[in-house]
Amino acid sequence: MLEAEVILKHAGQLVTVPPRARGARDDELGVIEDGALAIAEGRVLWAGPTAALARHVKVTPRTEIYHLHGRVVTPGLVDPHTHLVFAGTREHEFALRAAGRPYLEILAAGGGILSTVRATRAASDDELLRLALARLSRCLSFGVTTLEAKSGYGLSLEHELRILRTIDRAAQIHPVRLVPTLLAAHAVPPEFKGRQAAYVRHVVDEILPAVATERLAEYCDVFLDQGVFTLEQARRILERAARLGLRPRLHAGQFSDLGGAQLAARLHAASADHLEHVSAAGLRAMAKAGVTAVLLPGAALSLGMKPPDARPFLRAGVPVALATDLNPGTSMTENLLLMMTIGVTQQKLTPAQALRAVTDHAAAALGRSGRVGTLAIGAEADVAVFDVADWRQLAWHFGVPHAEMVLIEGEVVWSRDPIRRISGRRGRRRRRR
Amino acid sequence: MLEAEVILKHAGQLVTVPPRARGARDDELGVIEDGALAIAEGRVLWAGPTAALARHVKVTPRTEIYHLHGRVVTPGLVDPHTHLVFAGTREHEFALRAAGRPYLEILAAGGGILSTVRATRAASDDELLRLALARLSRCLSFGVTTLEAKSGYGLSLEHELRILRTIDRAAQIHPVRLVPTLLAAHAVPPEFKGRQAAYVRHVVDEILPAVATERLAEYCDVFLDQGVFTLEQARRILERAARLGLRPRLHAGQFSDLGGAQLAARLHAASADHLEHVSAAGLRAMAKAGVTAVLLPGAALSLGMKPPDARPFLRAGVPVALATDLNPGTSMTENLLLMMTIGVTQQKLTPAQALRAVTDHAAAALGRSGRVGTLAIGAEADVAVFDVADWRQLAWHFGVPHAEMVLIEGEVVWSRDPIRRISGRRGRRRRRR
Repeated sequence: MLEAEVILKHAGQLVTVPPRARGARDDELGVIEDGALAIAEGRVLWAGPTAALARHVKVTPRTEIYHLHGRVVTPGLVDPHTHLVFAGTREHEFALRAAGRPYLEILAAGGGILSTVRATRAASDDELLRLALARLSRCLSFGVTTLEAKSGYGLSLEHELRILRTIDRAAQIHPVRLVPTLLAAHAVPPEFKGRQAAYVRHVVDEILPAVATERLAEYCDVFLDQGVFTLEQARRILERAARLGLRPRLHAGQFSDLGGAQLAARLHAASADHLEHVSAAGLRAMAKAGVTAVLLPGAALSLGMKPPDARPFLRAGVPVALATDLNPGTSMTENLLLMMTIGVTQQKLTPAQALRAVTDHAAAALGRSGRVGTLAIGAEADVAVFDVADWRQLAWHFGVPHAEMVLIEGEVVWSRDPIRRISGRRGRRRRRR
Repeated sequence: MLEAEVILKHAGQLVTVPPRARGARDDELGVIEDGALAIAEGRVLWAGPTAALARHVKVTPRTEIYHLHGRVVTPGLVDPHTHLVFAGTREHEFALRAAGRPYLEILAAGGGILSTVRATRAASDDELLRLALARLSRCLSFGVTTLEAKSGYGLSLEHELRILRTIDRAAQIHPVRLVPTLLAAHAVPPEFKGRQAAYVRHVVDEILPAVATERLAEYCDVFLDQGVFTLEQARRILERAARLGLRPRLHAGQFSDLGGAQLAARLHAASADHLEHVSAAGLRAMAKAGVTAVLLPGAALSLGMKPPDARPFLRAGVPVALATDLNPGTSMTENLLLMMTIGVTQQKLTPAQALRAVTDHAAAALGRSGRVGTLAIGAEADVAVFDVADWRQLAWHFGVPHAEMVLIEGEVVWSRDPIRRISGRRGRRRRRR
């Protein structure tokens, strides 16, 4: 009999999300009514109906037991595309864009990404860390337990390293699991203005080797688009990265289709992200190579665009993940649940596909299918407990933080206080209407 | 010298939102840097720079003083269109709609609104109250202090009264100000299936007089649209309502333009709501009659539609308000700040127009301009304190509840606990990645 360290019981629904890599279909979520989850050594030991718990799992005096009163349990959510570390804010661009100024024009004029680069370079290490930690705590309140975090607001050897070290410090302090990605090719920095090719050489010859030596990033990413980096430059950077042990991923097709899907397929990238513009041939190539599409509806929402229809991806057999794209310019949000809502309502994912898009498929986009984003036996015991009665309500009831309790590796790392502190005077008058 | 009961000082920005009715322009928000607000007898006594506070306001030993450390203060937000009271959930319709089933077809087949009617009729009074109170508390976490609440899931004399009495009970218990609206003409109930005209007579002859006698509603609303109620039926109901002392407002143009904007103008309705479909002539009529347009981007988002462009409204001189449309079918959210975000990014309001749309213009839509939705001298001291550094971040940083503290009539009715309780074992292992 298995000896449990932690038990969660009487979940209204325990949604296990069997990994698709092990043969499950997109729409098979493994929902167990009145479910229980047993955890030992930080991993899932057993999952099944609460009624069967006693037959399979041994309780010791040290076992922590949580009675969930019908709340919904899912794997901790996985956000596979964020720009976690930056300083400064960009609310002023909302007014510019509302007045009709295109995003790439703001960028070309030294605003956009470059204004965040200036603020990030000027911020101290401690300030960058503090801002990242605050964002991570907001992510937790939506049930996120694993998060990809890109550099890309440094754009120099010194500052890209500084951002990746900030991610590393945050990973030591904060319970959310972080997957670091080098995105030195996010924009051409001011020092290289008009000398894009020279900056690409700098990334390839200086930044990439330094990051690889310090082992600060697991992935390398490039912003491939009109006016940013070319297909050939992306290929050069990502091939060099792969030789240095950094797996490729790619920003592709946000504003125009430059063949990024095919490049991602050729390089066996973990993911191609954005893909507002992608050809049928690009999707076929991705499907064949097993590249996950990471869709970013928050960016489309922020830029006044219609988020791309997910059905052509699904029909082509491309696994679809959703991410917040958390960044100060085009998607300032930690709310991954809201991406599920937009995924279903605007992008035509089924609710089951939307949940898989922020669990198993998001884990696949980070090379972690079966380890996180699932409650399969042996997976990390990263668990989100939501104050809803049905898992589909996570997409339906939107814009609010539903997580009630979050566990990472079997430990409760966050819980919501059910009664809020209220200060105020006694002897309240009768209210006027 | 004025004697203050409550003082808020050192707001990074105090956004007073002078009422447009008193001559302010749409984009004049009255932002005071390092601002202070003094309150007495539940109303705004003085607003100005913190440095000038001591010259204008007397502090007594009983004065409560809050130091805001640079947080942003706005008038408590006003949500002018919600369906607050209902039982049951409708997450299953998300899957139907994702599969291509049109909303009005789901309604015609006895789903949609009618499924919520069944659940609401079956729920006890206490259950309805409990659900409404929980929703109101979520509204508070986004800074909402005044909220319109419609009936419309009863659709019989007994159950419409029951819902309006629930709103009245909630208003007694919960600090948020509630403005009750009768929406008996929300759909044709099953008992009147195929006898729409008979149901309209029932509304006019039975429900309206009973609601007026009990003084349970301030407004009367009708869902005017293809397959719901006709222009002539809406006119009959709203004219009768006006004679009984219930001011008119109108659901118009969500799916098709049946002339609702002109009808709203002719009846001097407080607002016409939705208006995804509206003619230039309709907008001109609304502008001339001073009817506020209440746009509901959450419904467009949920239904996979593009939210309507606000610029034609503004050019025509129609005041634009934004609301959540909180309801279980097409906009299950309490997050009014998210409507500001969609208003700016997708509907092309400026950030200033978006803030006015959830304060002064929303108050105007409820006949309360100058009383709520503003921090003008003499207005109700309903105040939202947000944990942001600039008021424009309320639209920019989306999907998260920014309110830190909320006052209604000068009393702190809600505040966020800055450190969350965390339970967990000691002796945490080093995390694996």
